[in-house]
Amino acid sequence: MMKLYYEKGTCALASHIALEEAGAEYSTVRVDFAVQEQRSADYLAINPKARVPSLVTDRGILSETPAMLAFVAQSFPKARLAPLDDPFRFAEVQAFNSYLCSTVHVAHAHRTRGTRWVDDPAAIEAMKRKVPDSVGACFDLIERKMLQGPWVMGESYTICDPYLFTIAQWLEADGIDPARFPKVKAHRDRMSERPAVRKAVVAEAG
Amino acid sequence: MMKLYYEKGTCALASHIALEEAGAEYSTVRVDFAVQEQRSADYLAINPKARVPSLVTDRGILSETPAMLAFVAQSFPKARLAPLDDPFRFAEVQAFNSYLCSTVHVAHAHRTRGTRWVDDPAAIEAMKRKVPDSVGACFDLIERKMLQGPWVMGESYTICDPYLFTIAQWLEADGIDPARFPKVKAHRDRMSERPAVRKAVVAEAG
Repeated sequence: MMKLYYEKGTCALASHIALEEAGAEYSTVRVDFAVQEQRSADYLAINPKARVPSLVTDRGILSETPAMLAFVAQSFPKARLAPLDDPFRFAEVQAFNSYLCSTVHVAHAHRTRGTRWVDDPAAIEAMKRKVPDSVGACFDLIERKMLQGPWVMGESYTICDPYLFTIAQWLEADGIDPARFPKVKAHRDRMSERPAVRKAVVAEAG
Repeated sequence: MMKLYYEKGTCALASHIALEEAGAEYSTVRVDFAVQEQRSADYLAINPKARVPSLVTDRGILSETPAMLAFVAQSFPKARLAPLDDPFRFAEVQAFNSYLCSTVHVAHAHRTRGTRWVDDPAAIEAMKRKVPDSVGACFDLIERKMLQGPWVMGESYTICDPYLFTIAQWLEADGIDPARFPKVKAHRDRMSERPAVRKAVVAEAG
């Protein structure tokens, strides 16, 4: 049985939802960032990056959301969470998820994790001020060019959907009115009604 | 025939090398950042993110290095550039590449692309000062925990190798002495001797 290490309010929710959608047998373990548990010796042995998510499998430990999402899709092909038999369509799915991890999540992280990239307190504050613009520009591109509807890739629900849903949870806290992005907002609402999403969200809130 | 849009000194080199290793038929088009060609209407029609690389295929256009690398590996299975038949090993490859794009490349980009995340000139300078530390910490982790040797994933050359090679090109400019990371440096040297790497590097320099 797989074990997912997560923290509330993080991108780990995407993998949590995907495991649920796949019908996987898994358990979850919360890593309490408030007490810096991600930097404990026990957790560093699982993930030396001191980040979540981590997924412990019977083959070994995985990290990095896009890799974990593709792993879930490939390990549970009957759940049809990605176009596994079409390298081009699969690459489109991966490109979307790569954009979320390397650009959108990173823009967001400048509000809460600025010390990764700068030490000066004034610079940390300057970074925070730009987050509504930088994250807003990402979601503008997603709204106009990427989100096909009703799901990210069109008619087929894929591993892009829980990932977008997860990052779109952060819009309000990033100082962005979701009403600016009607397609993203409708996607978020549509996702919220899926049983797998409800189950993962409730489990993490509990 | 595929067409790769690149700029010199960017992460596009990773996909360029992978195409060469795969024996793909492809052509390359330079996007001249010095004249902001990446923001031209023509290029934005290819890649609305105004970034490189982009890969034009007969099915459509791809972006994002990890997605493109996996696409090349899946499209040219005889080149054996990834463990395509083993979802767990494939996920390990993807996790490494995801770390490069979302953490290592991002840390590096704070030296040259700070305006993505901040407007204040003093904050831009403060960001630059931390790059040797932040990029150095990434390479420390790669050296100690990730790079198995002789190739990233051990005995098998994969799409992780051109990507690490590409980002390791930037160490000196990021203010880091490669001698701190003997395994990374040996990998870079080993890569430099591969015919596909030489061909891509010479083509981009020309």
